[in-house]
Amino acid sequence: MKKQNANARERLVQTTGKLLRAQGYYATGLDEVLSRSSTPKGSLYHYFPGGKRQLADAAVRYMTDRMAKTLADVLRSTTDPAKALQRFLDGRAEDLAASSFTSGCPIATVTLETASDDADLCNACSEGFEKLTQIFIDHLVTAGISSERAKPMATLFIASWEGGLILSRARQDVEPLKAVSRELANLMNAVVKDAKRGARSLPIKARRKN
Amino acid sequence: MKKQNANARERLVQTTGKLLRAQGYYATGLDEVLSRSSTPKGSLYHYFPGGKRQLADAAVRYMTDRMAKTLADVLRSTTDPAKALQRFLDGRAEDLAASSFTSGCPIATVTLETASDDADLCNACSEGFEKLTQIFIDHLVTAGISSERAKPMATLFIASWEGGLILSRARQDVEPLKAVSRELANLMNAVVKDAKRGARSLPIKARRKN
Repeated sequence: MKKQNANARERLVQTTGKLLRAQGYYATGLDEVLSRSSTPKGSLYHYFPGGKRQLADAAVRYMTDRMAKTLADVLRSTTDPAKALQRFLDGRAEDLAASSFTSGCPIATVTLETASDDADLCNACSEGFEKLTQIFIDHLVTAGISSERAKPMATLFIASWEGGLILSRARQDVEPLKAVSRELANLMNAVVKDAKRGARSLPIKARRKN
Repeated sequence: MKKQNANARERLVQTTGKLLRAQGYYATGLDEVLSRSSTPKGSLYHYFPGGKRQLADAAVRYMTDRMAKTLADVLRSTTDPAKALQRFLDGRAEDLAASSFTSGCPIATVTLETASDDADLCNACSEGFEKLTQIFIDHLVTAGISSERAKPMATLFIASWEGGLILSRARQDVEPLKAVSRELANLMNAVVKDAKRGARSLPIKARRKN
């Protein structure tokens, strides 16, 4: 019984995550979550006494962890930041097309719906973006880019990934996200080249320190 | 009476536009639109027999035109694409802060809510993004950048503007949008420099043709 309940909690969170990704917070009703996840109402209120908001909060955090894992896995697959970034975004473009343009980013949709009047849900989204940004910052620093440079670059990366997803979903066409991927990869190549040139031009003493 | 009705239509569209921007399509109810716009129900069904969807479609198009005008005005204020872009995005960051992070982009929110299941509304959004992208493409081409280069650059610009808005709304802080603004301005400076270098290195005959 305990295991079954644990599975019920998981099913509720995963189903809600998928629905948030496809249509957002306000279009997602608890009846739809219950029927799609084949879960009885009792389980919902047992695990989420706070109802829909608490469930959405858990779903945003669950989807964040999933995206963070995918991002970290792809970034680990190569030491070249430009290649890593392009591999990641091209992968998202493939996923988007395979889902008939329904699999957007739940953090983005929930942010836009709740930023004006739901501080708690918006905060779960903000923490999600921070987590994704930090993974990319760490990757850039490992590739030799200074942390002062890595932070705004990572912000630009996350922002244009999210924006590219929006443009591609609006047009039902992966091309905007692919264009973003190519442009960011070019930019990243230039930044890496600059960082290497900077390291070479430092006096030997300073280079040892860094 | 006719003038009063025309004003009623305008009030309905403007009020809906503001609500879409703050909270999206599904959270916006017709009762809220009617009460906020001080408009009788009769006017709503007179001008929008298709109800909420038709009203939202008109509001997305109205907000697109407003954003397109602001973008075109700012781009016209300087011939330097990097400065123009930064001036525009910094202006959006100021507006966002002044609105306590409620004045997002209605096209983005409605896209994410409707891309999975409302082709008509999603199409209004797609046309909105195309219009904004084209304004920026024209600006870049006027600044001497080839149209092959201008198109993906404009896509990156619109994508990171939208993504920067999301990150800033999530964090209730203009810094992500300002970081995007600075990074894109740097990139734009490099692209303009490249375009000028390219033009200088062309043989005189080819230069005259271009």
